[in-house]
Amino acid sequence: MTDSSGDKIADDTFMVRPDPTNPKLTERVSGVDQNGNPIETSVTVERPLTLFLNGREIVTMMTICDYPDYLAVGYLLNQNMIHPDDEVTGIDYDEEIETVVVRTATETDFEEKLKKKTLTSGCAQGTVFGDVMEKFETVKLNQEAVLKTSWLYALTKTINTTPSLYLEAGAIHGCVLCDADKPLLYMEDVGRHNAVDKVIGRAFMDGLVPLTDYVLVVSGRVSYEIVAKAISACVGAIVAVSGPTTLAVDTARRHDLLLVGFARDDRMNIYSGGQWVNS
Amino acid sequence: MTDSSGDKIADDTFMVRPDPTNPKLTERVSGVDQNGNPIETSVTVERPLTLFLNGREIVTMMTICDYPDYLAVGYLLNQNMIHPDDEVTGIDYDEEIETVVVRTATETDFEEKLKKKTLTSGCAQGTVFGDVMEKFETVKLNQEAVLKTSWLYALTKTINTTPSLYLEAGAIHGCVLCDADKPLLYMEDVGRHNAVDKVIGRAFMDGLVPLTDYVLVVSGRVSYEIVAKAISACVGAIVAVSGPTTLAVDTARRHDLLLVGFARDDRMNIYSGGQWVNS
Repeated sequence: MTDSSGDKIADDTFMVRPDPTNPKLTERVSGVDQNGNPIETSVTVERPLTLFLNGREIVTMMTICDYPDYLAVGYLLNQNMIHPDDEVTGIDYDEEIETVVVRTATETDFEEKLKKKTLTSGCAQGTVFGDVMEKFETVKLNQEAVLKTSWLYALTKTINTTPSLYLEAGAIHGCVLCDADKPLLYMEDVGRHNAVDKVIGRAFMDGLVPLTDYVLVVSGRVSYEIVAKAISACVGAIVAVSGPTTLAVDTARRHDLLLVGFARDDRMNIYSGGQWVNS
Repeated sequence: MTDSSGDKIADDTFMVRPDPTNPKLTERVSGVDQNGNPIETSVTVERPLTLFLNGREIVTMMTICDYPDYLAVGYLLNQNMIHPDDEVTGIDYDEEIETVVVRTATETDFEEKLKKKTLTSGCAQGTVFGDVMEKFETVKLNQEAVLKTSWLYALTKTINTTPSLYLEAGAIHGCVLCDADKPLLYMEDVGRHNAVDKVIGRAFMDGLVPLTDYVLVVSGRVSYEIVAKAISACVGAIVAVSGPTTLAVDTARRHDLLLVGFARDDRMNIYSGGQWVNS
């Protein structure tokens, strides 16, 4: 495999990678440029997807909708609405009515909780926040997580030269689950949180969660939400292209999660945790 | 006023501008760099803020929390939970318990709607989405909105050289409400949607909504959510530094909202609506 300059790049280790040629994920949109000349560009799609868990409507998400099944399962796991030991018996996506239904073998305890709390709180979002925080206290991360500088250089190069919707159309974020210097699952979406949910959903369905030996590389910034999702799935380390927020750093430190920011070319900042090896 | 190169820049027309020297908005965080040397950098704060409307808990937002009052009112307006003709009788922010309560003269009809719908739908997010779409059909935008290339150049220069949390710490998005080539309200937040909510909340409290004669400049991408908020406040035009999604373009076109993307230096793409003048 070669990149656009013809250089040979790392052997392809991707289990899932972006498919910028999928006609469902971009549209050609016409407009004019700064001189009034007609232009036509690729624009990333965005569609609503309403998620149901066992007949209960949970949320409407805006997504490119390439993997509604992984997104649904990842979201429910990361919101603590289903647990790693719940048996998922079916995932039905209906493209026409833009819904995805996740079914579990037994009713999850989340549904009973939600039923009670919405009567008093109006919206599940605040409730979920509290609930996810509760789960955190019991999460055990891999405090021996190791990250090598050389892996990071290799990963960044491979990810940046892999054909993607980002390179094709922009206006999108990416998330890549990596095993040492090997990128495995590379997903993109209009929201960074969706990309993370899809990666974790797929990893769960492949039996890889808890992800203690894996590194999650994310485009852009790291807010609390991304760290929370990573801790939920027991990820070994987070590497971000841009900077973190204070709450992201504090939460990572409380759980000794290895958190790297501003990872660009041969530079990076390590804010928290784990074992980092400069080799 | 001069920028960092000493050039004179536009007279300061800001009613609100970022305050990167506010010690509540950044923290000094220590870490190590790629060579293992200790570093200390400014990191943007992120805090939870739980919003109540007349005693009903609505949502918990993650924010830098510089303007909880504008954020609360802007969010409620943009979600169609309060209306421009509702009288806001009080906004109480409690820093210690991280809550903000918005009170209106009469109970808003939203609360009754929410009470009914949460029983069947579980979470208000899906509900709200439908509701906001309903409101759209009645929104009248300024189809004569005019945007001049020269304004855009002036705005971009002023905004980029104004001291900000972005320049200080990164990991943040900005939104600027402008009157022709004059930036008026420049807000930043860890989520772009919060920055937009704060700007619209403040504009509403100043009696400027509907914003038919104003331009909203946003950092980064334009997704459906941003266009929806802009249409809710009847903004004249949206200018984004990065690209739009298809749903953002489609929605802008349906309402003849002037939508400009990839506005960088002397380049831009015009995707939709309004009157654009190359002068």
